[in-house]
Amino acid sequence: MAESMQGLKRSHRCAEVSNALEGQKVTVMGWVQKSRNKGGIIFVDLRDRSGILQIIFEESKCGSECFEKATKLKSEFVAAIEGIVCKRAGAVNENLTTGDIEVVATSLRILSEAETPPFPIEENSKTKEELRLKYRYLDLRRPDLQRNLVMKSKVMTIARQFMANEGFLEIETPMLCKSTPEGARDYLVPSRIHPGTFYALPQSPQIYKQLLMCSGYDRYFQIARCFRDEDLRADRQPEFTQMDMELSFVDVDDVIDVNERLLAKLFKEILDVDVKLPIRRMTWIEAMNRFGSDKPDLRFGMELKDISEVVKDCGFGVFTGALENGGSVRGINAKGQGAMPRKKIDALVEFAKTYGAKGLAYIAINEDGTYKSSFAKFMTEDEMNNIVAALSGEPGDLLLFAADKNKVVWDTLGALRCHLADQMGLLDKNVFEFVWITEFPLLEWSDEQNRFTAMHHPFTMPMEEDLAIIDTDPGKVRAKAYDIVLNGNEIGGGSVRIHQDDIQEKMFECLGFTREQAYERFGFLLDAFKYGVPPHAGLAYGLDRLVMLMAKQDSIRDVIAFPKVKDASCLMTNAPDYVDEAQLKELGIDITVLDEQKTEE
Amino acid sequence: MAESMQGLKRSHRCAEVSNALEGQKVTVMGWVQKSRNKGGIIFVDLRDRSGILQIIFEESKCGSECFEKATKLKSEFVAAIEGIVCKRAGAVNENLTTGDIEVVATSLRILSEAETPPFPIEENSKTKEELRLKYRYLDLRRPDLQRNLVMKSKVMTIARQFMANEGFLEIETPMLCKSTPEGARDYLVPSRIHPGTFYALPQSPQIYKQLLMCSGYDRYFQIARCFRDEDLRADRQPEFTQMDMELSFVDVDDVIDVNERLLAKLFKEILDVDVKLPIRRMTWIEAMNRFGSDKPDLRFGMELKDISEVVKDCGFGVFTGALENGGSVRGINAKGQGAMPRKKIDALVEFAKTYGAKGLAYIAINEDGTYKSSFAKFMTEDEMNNIVAALSGEPGDLLLFAADKNKVVWDTLGALRCHLADQMGLLDKNVFEFVWITEFPLLEWSDEQNRFTAMHHPFTMPMEEDLAIIDTDPGKVRAKAYDIVLNGNEIGGGSVRIHQDDIQEKMFECLGFTREQAYERFGFLLDAFKYGVPPHAGLAYGLDRLVMLMAKQDSIRDVIAFPKVKDASCLMTNAPDYVDEAQLKELGIDITVLDEQKTEE
Repeated sequence: MAESMQGLKRSHRCAEVSNALEGQKVTVMGWVQKSRNKGGIIFVDLRDRSGILQIIFEESKCGSECFEKATKLKSEFVAAIEGIVCKRAGAVNENLTTGDIEVVATSLRILSEAETPPFPIEENSKTKEELRLKYRYLDLRRPDLQRNLVMKSKVMTIARQFMANEGFLEIETPMLCKSTPEGARDYLVPSRIHPGTFYALPQSPQIYKQLLMCSGYDRYFQIARCFRDEDLRADRQPEFTQMDMELSFVDVDDVIDVNERLLAKLFKEILDVDVKLPIRRMTWIEAMNRFGSDKPDLRFGMELKDISEVVKDCGFGVFTGALENGGSVRGINAKGQGAMPRKKIDALVEFAKTYGAKGLAYIAINEDGTYKSSFAKFMTEDEMNNIVAALSGEPGDLLLFAADKNKVVWDTLGALRCHLADQMGLLDKNVFEFVWITEFPLLEWSDEQNRFTAMHHPFTMPMEEDLAIIDTDPGKVRAKAYDIVLNGNEIGGGSVRIHQDDIQEKMFECLGFTREQAYERFGFLLDAFKYGVPPHAGLAYGLDRLVMLMAKQDSIRDVIAFPKVKDASCLMTNAPDYVDEAQLKELGIDITVLDEQKTEE
Repeated sequence: MAESMQGLKRSHRCAEVSNALEGQKVTVMGWVQKSRNKGGIIFVDLRDRSGILQIIFEESKCGSECFEKATKLKSEFVAAIEGIVCKRAGAVNENLTTGDIEVVATSLRILSEAETPPFPIEENSKTKEELRLKYRYLDLRRPDLQRNLVMKSKVMTIARQFMANEGFLEIETPMLCKSTPEGARDYLVPSRIHPGTFYALPQSPQIYKQLLMCSGYDRYFQIARCFRDEDLRADRQPEFTQMDMELSFVDVDDVIDVNERLLAKLFKEILDVDVKLPIRRMTWIEAMNRFGSDKPDLRFGMELKDISEVVKDCGFGVFTGALENGGSVRGINAKGQGAMPRKKIDALVEFAKTYGAKGLAYIAINEDGTYKSSFAKFMTEDEMNNIVAALSGEPGDLLLFAADKNKVVWDTLGALRCHLADQMGLLDKNVFEFVWITEFPLLEWSDEQNRFTAMHHPFTMPMEEDLAIIDTDPGKVRAKAYDIVLNGNEIGGGSVRIHQDDIQEKMFECLGFTREQAYERFGFLLDAFKYGVPPHAGLAYGLDRLVMLMAKQDSIRDVIAFPKVKDASCLMTNAPDYVDEAQLKELGIDITVLDEQKTEE
């Protein structure tokens, strides 16, 4: 039977009890981590958010009734204990901050009993994630998850304070918005008062923050929930959190400046890591050419080398064919991997194919300087030597090549590079390599839609230097867009926005929108722009991903209190779930398709 | 044609330019508040978030090209101006912080032209709210709205910093939740991946924050968006913001303590108002008896007086009838309102009827001490005198009475009291009267559902003193619940939660739930409670309402950047709106009823 705590007041959290309190009476409350009876003394490890404290019950000190009660204590019971702080009689526990003391109990209340948990509450749990997510409230007791959420809370606190000091206003933007056809798929919310109509949950506060700039708020900041109803990839969540900002009367350097100082402050205060400022910058084209990715992981080299010139006249049709189609041939050098067994190389080829490559060519350089290669027979010895030289190949190295359209080559080798680095143990979570990627293409061609689409969004400012070619060669126009990349992850991105109506019109023209179509999509923003719009620019961070990297975790689920799984469901609450017929009737909607999985049950 | 700001950098916000900068060159950017050509000099008031700065263009100083451009400046144009700070040549403007200086322009860029706005951008706008909400991005330029949103941002910043210092962790809880049948109506979100099922948007983070306490997070804080699909009353929003907290190992006084210090800090730092601590406390029954409300406005007296004893044997059937039905007769004294014309008294009677009263009885005390009364003919002179004495009636006073069941009498006189205070000019927005209301009833009887319902929620802890009568007289049991009331507004409320399973079971029994029904509603929380639950308690503020009172506004719409109107629509974006058939098909839903208003269009 659970007792009340009425009349009691906690004096300290467990790990706040220190040897400075020796001889004093304390009242502590927490969960029983473990309890054991050893030679007539009951030892209890009491746990709370702060840590663990050892309590001992001796019948002579606490009385027989209390001692009797203490024998009932089991793992995860919640207890309130009064007692005296003493030096440990037994061995000091070096793993605990409270390892040299113990509390000799004088009274005990059992505030809550507990059934045996379905899995042990312990650091680095081996329990299957599904079971842990079903009992997330128990999983969240694990010290590693607690540290992650404490860190996330700190990141938010420090970021908000920094932004406030920099003159940013925190302004809440709506969650019940209007659906726009551009972008990812919206989550919809049926309206009851206006049957047949729907709100959409925001994919980002983008349009609202631009409106706030039009309204003269000058600097806006928000940690905002965003929603995208996408087919979930491994580490996506249907709802996620953006650390979002927008600034008026600024250009690229102003946005980068404030964000570099923000990042430096976060990493210093939370991890005691010095971020060297200014953070290096790399143009998009340089990142693609050198790393095959617009989010290059700079913790290691293994850069892409273009060998198109070297092989342009060779006898290997795969290479020359790619070049004739306007593509390129590029390679990377996996240092010291020359002895990789054929089976593992085959696996790399399969991996490459998932990025659109038709295959991978390779040269393994034997220790004696000879080559083992998939394509040597098509090459002259000179050509082989030149290729190897181009990649600075040395005995023991494995050189891997892709030949295709640039995009396929970049994607394939960019992914392969990271895949190999992981296998080779080059990804050190304690190293933080930042880079700004700038000068993104403004537009990217969509074969599906047979038109250009905006690489960032339709309000992104072209680089003024490139305005002259926007009519003749729109695909070549670079944008005033920037991403901040950390260890191969895009942790944030943004752009300068268009504030000039003639450029905006040109942009819509590039996207193939008539004025009417543009209006249909962005009407109220375009209206707002009629009444005086300041130059403005912004940036948004994926907060979950940033904290994941800071906490050295592999999944954003480990930094979200109540995450959803891949199919966008919550294993703890069973959301989404069926609702009463009456609720749907009120909304004026009907179900046309039922979830097969569930109806089969 | 709009110009770029490339190569320019703002040196100061408008109101940051002070006479300390005299003789220096500055670069300012903002909106043209007004512009006039006076004697060959163009005077421009330039506005940004900080305030207004006077700029002058003289052809001899800025050159003819710049001067020519300056003649084009009109209201709401956005301009960047370089110039020299000078003492004002003309009269000093005492209304501006920059009133004794001006900037003599040396160059001008027009960053954006502007059409004439549909209404003037000015303080205390007389423009109809609908028009302002349609053009909210212009409305938000008004200095009073800007001050409100700046204040809200400050409230959030200070509150978060305070809570962090007090050891609270900010933890985000999900927006895509499971629908629960208890409480208000949920907003639903159809799932595409699991057709036929729905998420619900949270009405509050209540269950999640209790789970976080079960998980050992000890102190939780969040500024969280909440959603209720209710038929909207005057000043409700479908989405609103709670400042939400929960604490473990605490009782009522601990929650009150931290919140009093939070409120004192907010009012001191933002308004320089000293909140006298401790804030007074009043039990629910005292609040009802004295003020007819559980959110009494203590800025004025006009307390309710129970005259049931005085009139119990009188000849007025309305009074004696109410008493025979177990009700009461109570009155208030509207000081100095004795000469109120009959027509206005009739209006008060109509007002009273909207609260369920069948009528209002009154006594007007003439200056000569005689009475004008609706019921004198049923009374003896002694009875009349005793009634007047009970209300401390003096010549010139108006006494108003209601006789009915207690609830109707309280509601009627409680509302009437505030209504009269408003008419009598007693509601001073510069006075802040706080009060904690405590010892609420645990349960309230619902005629509709023919069962008790939870007054706060089903996890609210009964007062231990009353546990003995929970079986025999559940309606009398008081709860460990508390509301914080400011000037007649409930700005926050909360309770100690039940952590003992036997009491929780008893509570469900009172609510008429079987174990199964309770499980269906709150399953995962009850599951969590099996594994060790700490005593915990919490509180949530309606942030919008709190800021509204601090900003001395009458509507929460004036402290929300993009509010919705009464029918839950957004006049700016036209949300909610129709969506593509294809979107609904993907969700596996169909519309059965169309919005008549819209289809008529």
